[in-house]
Amino acid sequence: MMSKKYNVKTPSGFPEFSPAQEQVRQRWIKTIAEVFEKNGFLPINTPLVEREENLLGKGGNPKEMYALKRILDEEGDISHSGNALRFDHTVPLALYVARNFNDLNFPFRRYTIGPVFRGERAQKGRFRQFDQCDIDVIGNGSLSILNDAQMPAIIIDIFRQLMSEEPFVVRINNRKILLGFFESTGVEADKIKTVLNIVDELEKIGETAVGKKLEEQKVEKEAIKNILDFIQIQGSNETILEKLKEMSNDSDLFKEGVEELQLVVKSIENMGIDEKYFKVDLCIARGLDYYTGTVFETNLINYFGLGSICSGGRYEDLASVFTGKVMPGVGISIGLTRLLSQFFEEGLVKTDRQTRTQILVINVDEVALPKSLEIGKKLRDGGFFVENYLEDKKLGKKFDYADKMQIPYVVVLGEDELNKKYVQVKNMETGEKTEVGEDKLEDYFSLIYA
Amino acid sequence: MMSKKYNVKTPSGFPEFSPAQEQVRQRWIKTIAEVFEKNGFLPINTPLVEREENLLGKGGNPKEMYALKRILDEEGDISHSGNALRFDHTVPLALYVARNFNDLNFPFRRYTIGPVFRGERAQKGRFRQFDQCDIDVIGNGSLSILNDAQMPAIIIDIFRQLMSEEPFVVRINNRKILLGFFESTGVEADKIKTVLNIVDELEKIGETAVGKKLEEQKVEKEAIKNILDFIQIQGSNETILEKLKEMSNDSDLFKEGVEELQLVVKSIENMGIDEKYFKVDLCIARGLDYYTGTVFETNLINYFGLGSICSGGRYEDLASVFTGKVMPGVGISIGLTRLLSQFFEEGLVKTDRQTRTQILVINVDEVALPKSLEIGKKLRDGGFFVENYLEDKKLGKKFDYADKMQIPYVVVLGEDELNKKYVQVKNMETGEKTEVGEDKLEDYFSLIYA
Repeated sequence: MMSKKYNVKTPSGFPEFSPAQEQVRQRWIKTIAEVFEKNGFLPINTPLVEREENLLGKGGNPKEMYALKRILDEEGDISHSGNALRFDHTVPLALYVARNFNDLNFPFRRYTIGPVFRGERAQKGRFRQFDQCDIDVIGNGSLSILNDAQMPAIIIDIFRQLMSEEPFVVRINNRKILLGFFESTGVEADKIKTVLNIVDELEKIGETAVGKKLEEQKVEKEAIKNILDFIQIQGSNETILEKLKEMSNDSDLFKEGVEELQLVVKSIENMGIDEKYFKVDLCIARGLDYYTGTVFETNLINYFGLGSICSGGRYEDLASVFTGKVMPGVGISIGLTRLLSQFFEEGLVKTDRQTRTQILVINVDEVALPKSLEIGKKLRDGGFFVENYLEDKKLGKKFDYADKMQIPYVVVLGEDELNKKYVQVKNMETGEKTEVGEDKLEDYFSLIYA
Repeated sequence: MMSKKYNVKTPSGFPEFSPAQEQVRQRWIKTIAEVFEKNGFLPINTPLVEREENLLGKGGNPKEMYALKRILDEEGDISHSGNALRFDHTVPLALYVARNFNDLNFPFRRYTIGPVFRGERAQKGRFRQFDQCDIDVIGNGSLSILNDAQMPAIIIDIFRQLMSEEPFVVRINNRKILLGFFESTGVEADKIKTVLNIVDELEKIGETAVGKKLEEQKVEKEAIKNILDFIQIQGSNETILEKLKEMSNDSDLFKEGVEELQLVVKSIENMGIDEKYFKVDLCIARGLDYYTGTVFETNLINYFGLGSICSGGRYEDLASVFTGKVMPGVGISIGLTRLLSQFFEEGLVKTDRQTRTQILVINVDEVALPKSLEIGKKLRDGGFFVENYLEDKKLGKKFDYADKMQIPYVVVLGEDELNKKYVQVKNMETGEKTEVGEDKLEDYFSLIYA
């Protein structure tokens, strides 16, 4: 029947989730969205496709972006359409704000959960299509630093629900502190970004290697010592903040950063959140130039190697190229696909059985079919998850299906049961069989699935 | 600040949903998915991108398909990647079954809700990206006709929940009846498809025009009369089925179709579903060649002009090109984006306010900030949807925000309230203000949002 051999594999880097995995993914999205909404974030649904020019105008990497072309357009022309798949949620947000500026109330809180696309070289843990869950608060002209404190609170609420047994910590820093400090350490202005990126690698490559890299950048020995001492200031949040305030640093930027960080930490404390969940960490810098103030990373304490599971920060300019307006914002992003695929692999998240079906209804003979259909429908209407087994197979095959699908209960009825107005209920785990009156069936399962 | 003028509009044919619309969309998806799962359908999540060759191998129209190319790949080569965006959920299902054949239990019930892409000419009600909600039951070798009866039951359950006040009807037919009838009416075999497509237009263009078109196809006068009489057989489901059985038609296909249709109708009745929701209608043919037996369309009775809001049917060959196996199936599809955009326009579905926020917490002065953060967090932990207003604005501006966002309650506290351990609660609709003890706040809102 196959006239041609097709390669039916998914394209490299494009993930597929099985029913059991997909149920976890949906449950996670539900939890994440609910926390976002409980904090006042509005869902928006922008297209997966935007004008290529707009995506390139706001940081899109042309080497990684997927443009669309029609395989064959009406004139037989194969030129592409001028549109491309979004590579993040930030550019679409900027475009949304530009498109709808006059209808928005600021601060504008929005969330988006959905796929983004990057034509990166496919490798383990790297996907070309992956779901991101983003929130951002956007101010019109200005945005209170207090919004920054809401982000860790939200991250903590989400991961306490998703991973109740895995300890995690939100690490917080402020790039103004880093920038101010480096400035005063004599690192030349045009090198600060390079130095920040090197410092960002501290965890990955260690102190010695960071020192060496800084040397290569011709940072003075004295300065390197200061930098390494500084980014490793340890202690409780209070201790670190005290040490920062005691430092005799003349940089206004540094002082501003310390004040902001203190206010953010204080505000999280005000919310009554346990300090074990959030930690000032001066070696967090975030690679992106985009961030200008508070930055966040989140780590599983027992799986630090997995890297940050939720990151974000404060930025000064969401969309000026599109709107001509100053719009600062603060946001976080959860890389859901990467996270789940890692967690499935590490066994950190268990998949459940693949179906939610609670009851399989089987008619032994044809005379019981109408009643079995009626029972199936009634149980569904009663709120249960119910399948009728409808194929013309031997009884054993029907039970096999329940077994393989891990359906916990089977309702069986034939002519006998029909006449006596009861059914057999088989508990598939214990093998136990119970006779239940046809009209008592809903009550019976209500007790089990209360 | 704008160095360049960007066109920030969404690309033509790619829809954007506002927060208020998006909330409806999410609610609909939740309802639809819940009904699918209650009927035993498993969610799968296949990539939005498949190999171009596979999409073309199973009915993809190269004129409408979007291939991906990287704008600039690492070698500067602009050749595309050999992958393209999916244009429906059926081909990805076929590929999923081919990829995972040995792990599946048959009959395999799966659902998918998500976007598909078609590079059609953009026009009103036509989208290039749109969500489809699909279920299919796939048999390995064979599949009981009884599964066909589950489809109307599911459609009815969904639309009773989504549109409780809008009467609708699922119209059911069987293509075997049509094919058998035409055969015996003397319509030549190679014309049957053309005739079926003409008959399918009856509602759109009327009896006379259908007659004329049939004449153009050189169908005999006598036959045209028979055809028009036949497809307009009226009455209750029972009456129509009786009339079909009384017809002296020798075609085995016709007889098989009548038997199947009767069994499907009988089974829906067995489930106790009110006859007003499903109706045998001999003029439903569905345009697609794909369908081979039962076919469904669903219409809003007061908005017939909108066309079918949920369609589907039985097919004999899901995936033989990919699997080399015979796999019949039956499925339905809801074109969610098209539906919602029509319904919003017709006012058939009302959007709610854009936010779910129930309570806005406002601190009048800075001394009340820590307490206001604490209260906001406590109320959220108590299950409420709560925002803190954090911007440094005049009190009037803060209330303006609550007003514009249609947030029903504002909690206000300043130094006075702080000292006396109570807060002001303002009902934004009535303007009524109430003093509530700080420790009584959760109880207060629990009564309102019970």
